[in-house]
Amino acid sequence: MKTKKILLPESQLPAQWYNIVGDMPNRPLPPLDPKTRRPVMPEQMNGLFAEELVRQEFSTERYIDIPEPVRELYKIYRSTPLVRAYGLEKALDTPARIYFKNESVSPVGSHKTNTAIPQAYYNHRQGIRRLTTETGAGQWGSAMAMACNHFGIALEVFMVKVSYMQKPYRKMMMNTWGAEVHASPSTLTEAGRAALARNPDDSGSLGMAISEAVERVFLNPEQTRYCLGSVLNHVLLHQTVIGEEALRQMELFDDYPDTVIGCFGGGSNFGGIGFPFLRENLTHGRKTRIIAVEARSCPKLTRGRFEYDFGDTAGFTPLFPMYTLGHDFHPSDIHAGGLRYHGAGPIVSQLLRDGLIEAQAVPQLETLEAGILFARTEGIIPAPESAHAIAAAIREARRAGEEGTPRTILFNLSGHGQIDLLAYERFLAGELRDPEVSDEELRRSLDRLAPIVG
Amino acid sequence: MKTKKILLPESQLPAQWYNIVGDMPNRPLPPLDPKTRRPVMPEQMNGLFAEELVRQEFSTERYIDIPEPVRELYKIYRSTPLVRAYGLEKALDTPARIYFKNESVSPVGSHKTNTAIPQAYYNHRQGIRRLTTETGAGQWGSAMAMACNHFGIALEVFMVKVSYMQKPYRKMMMNTWGAEVHASPSTLTEAGRAALARNPDDSGSLGMAISEAVERVFLNPEQTRYCLGSVLNHVLLHQTVIGEEALRQMELFDDYPDTVIGCFGGGSNFGGIGFPFLRENLTHGRKTRIIAVEARSCPKLTRGRFEYDFGDTAGFTPLFPMYTLGHDFHPSDIHAGGLRYHGAGPIVSQLLRDGLIEAQAVPQLETLEAGILFARTEGIIPAPESAHAIAAAIREARRAGEEGTPRTILFNLSGHGQIDLLAYERFLAGELRDPEVSDEELRRSLDRLAPIVG
Repeated sequence: MKTKKILLPESQLPAQWYNIVGDMPNRPLPPLDPKTRRPVMPEQMNGLFAEELVRQEFSTERYIDIPEPVRELYKIYRSTPLVRAYGLEKALDTPARIYFKNESVSPVGSHKTNTAIPQAYYNHRQGIRRLTTETGAGQWGSAMAMACNHFGIALEVFMVKVSYMQKPYRKMMMNTWGAEVHASPSTLTEAGRAALARNPDDSGSLGMAISEAVERVFLNPEQTRYCLGSVLNHVLLHQTVIGEEALRQMELFDDYPDTVIGCFGGGSNFGGIGFPFLRENLTHGRKTRIIAVEARSCPKLTRGRFEYDFGDTAGFTPLFPMYTLGHDFHPSDIHAGGLRYHGAGPIVSQLLRDGLIEAQAVPQLETLEAGILFARTEGIIPAPESAHAIAAAIREARRAGEEGTPRTILFNLSGHGQIDLLAYERFLAGELRDPEVSDEELRRSLDRLAPIVG
Repeated sequence: MKTKKILLPESQLPAQWYNIVGDMPNRPLPPLDPKTRRPVMPEQMNGLFAEELVRQEFSTERYIDIPEPVRELYKIYRSTPLVRAYGLEKALDTPARIYFKNESVSPVGSHKTNTAIPQAYYNHRQGIRRLTTETGAGQWGSAMAMACNHFGIALEVFMVKVSYMQKPYRKMMMNTWGAEVHASPSTLTEAGRAALARNPDDSGSLGMAISEAVERVFLNPEQTRYCLGSVLNHVLLHQTVIGEEALRQMELFDDYPDTVIGCFGGGSNFGGIGFPFLRENLTHGRKTRIIAVEARSCPKLTRGRFEYDFGDTAGFTPLFPMYTLGHDFHPSDIHAGGLRYHGAGPIVSQLLRDGLIEAQAVPQLETLEAGILFARTEGIIPAPESAHAIAAAIREARRAGEEGTPRTILFNLSGHGQIDLLAYERFLAGELRDPEVSDEELRRSLDRLAPIVG
């Protein structure tokens, strides 16, 4: 019988995260202090993040040991399966071999636990009693709720309002693990109140939710820190367990991908699956294409500008060098809430600029159609975010068919869609559309960026 | 580092189901035709179920081969992990070692796919184009929707109304796989219309949903069949993959359970985890306690009567020998919708009567409290049904602590609760209560049973 999926025994789980910064031909430019325009020193970030996370943020070591308490918790769900998508291949009648890494088997249904666990652990070790964070679709907030509960840390989550309304079960999940959840923009912060004053119906964005979560740290700076689910170097670092496992699992399948695909919000699942394979490109002469797939209605990689910009809407964070749509770009209310972010993260942006990775944008309807085909052929209902990776994999497989060339495609199934079913229900009912971003709208948003960069 | 969980490679997945009927000292009494009171012949059931399923229903062979297409689909999610619950053990400060089999990793979030896949397969092989079924909490309907979609069979699901309202995402999930879903009682059938005439606010029951699904088969008897998610012998047979895997996994942990626990609705996940261990009791002198845990508000095992009774409310099915509360017993609207069934299934009933298994009843609040403790210590939010098994495991672990004896407890985590979060939300808000069944109510229900048995 054909092998459908491969898991690794616990004894073979990765003992180290891979830090791609150590192998990049051009390292990311440093974050800047928005006032002085000088590089931010690590100690300046210690008020916001746990010290070990700041150390990792600036690290250039190629490998960083995964602490034992983190490895213990990873074992709740890792290794995740690497699966050959025979059903999808057959439906597409493609000569391509399609594999996916199934991160949806985590307790919250996505890859986000990979970094939530170490972030909660390092904060706990430092004696932090309270964390704040933002969440889009709720995957990240759920992961932090689970991890904070484990390490006895109180958690306050600002959830983008449109997702708060669309995905009530995510809030319930966070509550079950004891976290406090607010719809963002909220009246709890100055940033939120200002946004609501401008537009009482503001449906929120990840950038705004970050502003609110950061502002709350200032209330009790001694024992409170902030944590972020994507974008930053240390977050992507933790996610590399995905790709490290996948490398070993592909070897056990006796195959190797020529294309690796991840959906793209801020870069965490993309970097997680992609960076270990990119290392093989950079250090062992492999030529795998590494493709980031963004939502066409939030196209920072394919239509954004490489610039220094704030990580949040209100401008509380340092300036980061990244592909951005401008920090006050307001994305459409697509169901893939995790992709509604204006920027791309320093590492991924530098890699894209250097031509070491590729980017594609896929419209909402194509992704949901891909998600349904996947559910019906592989039996798993994907998160709308992950459906972007599936849509791109389908495009690549179709191209392989047209060209008549065998291909090996690997994508990351970053999460399941069991709590995002409204997206599919509305799609099947014909109620959804493809939101478009006009050149004019994009230019206006990017023009507002100019004065910041000076 | 300590081993947290063990999975089996695909090459070691069970190739056969285990049929406990072949080892039972007293085999279950035969089902009876309600009109003639004579044993039902297999061919009489062929109009309702696929022929191979009827053959299995009456089989006394100890092992039945799992067909290759079924094994292929099992590989989407099997083996499921066997996990040592270190977190729960620590929270309970117990000398007991607690393990759980994690069936929640299936694509629909529960063990129900184990029998949905073979049921859809055998119907497909026979040329059946349309299936009908009932579902309580929606786990079974989702599993059949996924399986029917795979084999190109149209599916119509009657979902108990209280669950239909409480768990809208389950309906969306079934729709995503292309199934048609009705709240039961519905106006589509005579049984449903009669129930609504008696009480327009009837919140439904599994027994009523079965009546409606069975009635729909008569509309197009040539190409339509019915399928059932629990109770019957062939359903429990398919579920034994759970226990067969668990036996091997316990061996790899170098341990053996003295107590095996499953929650109990109609018997499918309980039989699945329990029967292979019961075989070891019957044939190899093991003395493992096998405990079925029911909802205290639907107590057929602990307070019901052993009798011939209908499997459904309207009386369309044969009479089955089982512990029952009477086929028109109306269970309270507890959140564990999958346990709201009046009867117990012929095999389990006979085993209980013969003292080969035990039964316990647990109230709703204790189960949800257990579910939250489990979510907070093991990271997985359990289905309210599965939380009954957890509650019983906690009781056993506490007793081990009081007695100061080490114990090895294994329970089945039949499903996750990510789509049942309303139960926990309401529990945390203090809105839930423990419904009670009075002796008087029970006597009335059982007295109505008497004339049927004659």
